[in-house]
Amino acid sequence: MNYNVTVIPGDGIGPEIVREAQKVLDKIGEKFGHSFNYTEVLMGGASIDVHGVPLTDETLAVAKASDSVLLGAVGGDVGNSKWYDIAPELRPEAGLLAIRKGMGLFANIRPAYLYEELKDACPLKDEIIGDGFDMVVMRELTGGIYFGERKTEEVDGVMKATDILSYDENEIRRIAVKAFEIAMKRDKRVISVDKANVLDSSRLWRKVVAEVAKDYPEVQLSNMLVDNCAMQLVRDPKQFDVILTENMFGDILSDEASMVTGSIGMLSSASLGATKCGLYEPSHGSAPDIAGKDLANPIATILSAAMMLRYSFDLDQEADAVEAAVKKVLEDGYRTGDIMSQGMKQVGTIEMGSLIAERI
Amino acid sequence: MNYNVTVIPGDGIGPEIVREAQKVLDKIGEKFGHSFNYTEVLMGGASIDVHGVPLTDETLAVAKASDSVLLGAVGGDVGNSKWYDIAPELRPEAGLLAIRKGMGLFANIRPAYLYEELKDACPLKDEIIGDGFDMVVMRELTGGIYFGERKTEEVDGVMKATDILSYDENEIRRIAVKAFEIAMKRDKRVISVDKANVLDSSRLWRKVVAEVAKDYPEVQLSNMLVDNCAMQLVRDPKQFDVILTENMFGDILSDEASMVTGSIGMLSSASLGATKCGLYEPSHGSAPDIAGKDLANPIATILSAAMMLRYSFDLDQEADAVEAAVKKVLEDGYRTGDIMSQGMKQVGTIEMGSLIAERI
Ligand SMILES: CC(C)[C@H](C(=O)O)[C@@H](O)C(=O)O
Ligand SMILES: CC(C)[C@H](C(=O)O)[C@@H](O)C(=O)O
Repeated sequence: MNYNVTVIPGDGIGPEIVREAQKVLDKIGEKFGHSFNYTEVLMGGASIDVHGVPLTDETLAVAKASDSVLLGAVGGDVGNSKWYDIAPELRPEAGLLAIRKGMGLFANIRPAYLYEELKDACPLKDEIIGDGFDMVVMRELTGGIYFGERKTEEVDGVMKATDILSYDENEIRRIAVKAFEIAMKRDKRVISVDKANVLDSSRLWRKVVAEVAKDYPEVQLSNMLVDNCAMQLVRDPKQFDVILTENMFGDILSDEASMVTGSIGMLSSASLGATKCGLYEPSHGSAPDIAGKDLANPIATILSAAMMLRYSFDLDQEADAVEAAVKKVLEDGYRTGDIMSQGMKQVGTIEMGSLIAERI
Repeated sequence: MNYNVTVIPGDGIGPEIVREAQKVLDKIGEKFGHSFNYTEVLMGGASIDVHGVPLTDETLAVAKASDSVLLGAVGGDVGNSKWYDIAPELRPEAGLLAIRKGMGLFANIRPAYLYEELKDACPLKDEIIGDGFDMVVMRELTGGIYFGERKTEEVDGVMKATDILSYDENEIRRIAVKAFEIAMKRDKRVISVDKANVLDSSRLWRKVVAEVAKDYPEVQLSNMLVDNCAMQLVRDPKQFDVILTENMFGDILSDEASMVTGSIGMLSSASLGATKCGLYEPSHGSAPDIAGKDLANPIATILSAAMMLRYSFDLDQEADAVEAAVKKVLEDGYRTGDIMSQGMKQVGTIEMGSLIAERI
């Protein structure tokens, strides 16, 4: 088959990690008889430099017309980059928010998984790690306070700033459905996270999630308050299978969950909407300090490409092949600097990409 | 001196842990020639049972007229208690929010400290613990989304719920001042946490905090995004001295920070406003599952009483004496069940209180 993939290298380490993911995709194409046609476009800081805005209408149109989007990372060193001297809606991150909204990608799936081979990198004690853990954060991505109205105004000589958090039942229902669908393919446990003891939006969230749960009698649903969840992720991450939550809580908790694994350079993400066209990007950021030095770990991006094969193209076998190659490379003792430990072989970004491609 | 203390035992383990804190206060009184007069009032579930509401005007008036308030914990087992079948504004937690607002307690100070003696209970690996860590979360407590307007309405047949987050510069300034004042007595480093890449309220927050920082040239200020902070607390808690943040982020991050220490049963908190009259309570909850069984750890409440001595009564020497007694009891090998480890002597709530009182 032929697949049209929009490639957004972005900023910082984005270009070099996306290149390795393309290398792996090409190997998949060769092996399984597919062809991936790439259209490269600018977003984030790279787009500001050329077009003055982080996302142009043309870029969004290209992305929407393609079969899927592969993204590196956007943004730079906040405070130390010219991209942050401009209005917030013109900064690199605004491009990311705008493409999510523009493509209607309301469901962000972030697996947080402890690699057996990388137990040493996990910050938690061995007795907490136990047999390891494997969870998925399902974050609502186009609603809530990150997309609400906001304003800064002077009221009686005093500056005041306001952000509005709102959800309607349809927004909640569609993300809940995605979470239960994923849970059905996993351990059939959903923990929905909210702050229902205080927020109206959380109470509606809890109510709609409970309604959706009725359609999935095999899935066990429980509710957890967000403050408690922030604790439980550290105390006992093994208890989680699928975490379902709204945009802002998901932002905070998915980052915490990634770090708890100790392998943030390994964690992929998929952002999905109503169509098959999704956006795939690593969970980590643009790491401007190591950009262009062949030091970045390309694995999270390579695994994001695997998610693209699985969710956008229904190529499960091909996705399995990528994941198996990553596992093999770790078993063979190869590590980038961020996951290096004693006795292992340290390699750069490009070599890591090649080693994985070779194993496909 | 004579001090009038409002005592709110509250729910769950509240009554039994507050009793031990009073035992310790009485010993301080004896030793240093003070007298503490207690007025016991109901709040939370206990108040709902008697008055139908979690906080009466009379209780609030008593609290405001006293020199300080000592609180156990409020609330019960969400979903398994009759207190949660009623409207949100009538539930136990609403009493807590209302007393904070009613007393004007805008500054919540939560130390998160790794006890040398309890390193085993810390979920983090030894190489991350290093020489230990000692941070304070300064959480804004009477503003932001937990106190904004909220509504649930039907719009064109679709249910929609909204919560409003807003801050004005005065609210931000006064909490920032408290954070910088505390930093001056500590390691002189403030990390202000926000989501300034998205929220208007966070951008105003960042701006006002930077202004306040000018009055404290000795204090080093940096900004961190909330998602990053949730990661950094796990990756390297040693980097933090004072974390300054708004209400909701502080709720989430202070709980995470407590859990990272592994000693949540040990962590106290103080809520302060413009007057000397504050509210002191443990960082942990009401633990209904172990209530009344002489199993709860009273140390967080005892240390909250020490904070009361320090912040409301300016009795530094007396506060030091309580803290030293707690340290001594740990050195002597006594532990409640939650912090028990091999070779230590396990004791109950009452005995732990007595052992600490004896050491004063
Ligand atoms: C860059 C920022 C707007 C974004 C978000 O908060 O959604 C990022 O933190 C993420 O999690 O993808
Ligand atoms: C009970 C709840 C309203 C409260 C809060 O979120 O403020 C609690 O979680 C806390 O942190 O003291």
